[in-house]
Amino acid sequence: MEQRISLITLAVDDLEATRRFFEDGLGWTQAPGGNEHIAFYQLTGSALALYSRAHLAKDLGRDLPAETLGGMTIAWNARSEEEVDTAYAEALTAGAEVVVRPEKVFWGGYSGYVSIPGGHLLEIAYNPFWPLSADGSITLPPADPEAG
Amino acid sequence: MEQRISLITLAVDDLEATRRFFEDGLGWTQAPGGNEHIAFYQLTGSALALYSRAHLAKDLGRDLPAETLGGMTIAWNARSEEEVDTAYAEALTAGAEVVVRPEKVFWGGYSGYVSIPGGHLLEIAYNPFWPLSADGSITLPPADPEAG
Repeated sequence: MEQRISLITLAVDDLEATRRFFEDGLGWTQAPGGNEHIAFYQLTGSALALYSRAHLAKDLGRDLPAETLGGMTIAWNARSEEEVDTAYAEALTAGAEVVVRPEKVFWGGYSGYVSIPGGHLLEIAYNPFWPLSADGSITLPPADPEAG
Repeated sequence: MEQRISLITLAVDDLEATRRFFEDGLGWTQAPGGNEHIAFYQLTGSALALYSRAHLAKDLGRDLPAETLGGMTIAWNARSEEEVDTAYAEALTAGAEVVVRPEKVFWGGYSGYVSIPGGHLLEIAYNPFWPLSADGSITLPPADPEAG
């Protein structure tokens, strides 16, 4: 299997609330193709879906736990520590809740976590070892710094 | 916040087992910068991390539930239905467990789910509405087909 992940899907109980967080709160644009049970967002090279937990459960043929916190996180990387602070404040204004406020972290970066509407964890981080390209793509360094 | 997700982090209890699944099983290459608690993989435009659940819990300052199934899924998109079957078989050989075998699904594609070592859900799918570029990048269609 070629080395890629095409889609990240977040199971949500209230799609509208999570959708509003990304669209009204963060200013993201939903791609066509969604409906009242699913919403898609173009990312750099991949895509994000918000999907009704009930529908995902039906697709999987099993019940899904309501507790989603902590099994998986997604991260939004900034270009500077200042941009982390700005983005963190923006996320709170958009309806996210504080989990860990941005701080210098052991791996040499600057990072905080919020819980977004629906309960998923979003890290907002600056990693000086992982520069972002103009389009926001991340390229992991070839050498062996103390990245994290 | 610019529209992107930089990093997907899977919390795992046995990093070595999940690492072997991706590297020995699927043939993925780990990026430098990892250690016994974390492993990184370059994706198209973003990155994947496997991270010790205990360490993530420490970063977050809270306990994390051991049940990780179902709150979030990641998907690997193939270029054809045949490639789904091949990849699904490869994932099983690599140590994943059957959740839903590949089948024609309501949104017009062909998709199956496995549980990978560590319990996370991986969808393996062909979506005829979402062509992959040569490098594996997904671009969501501009029009309004019945994508999913």
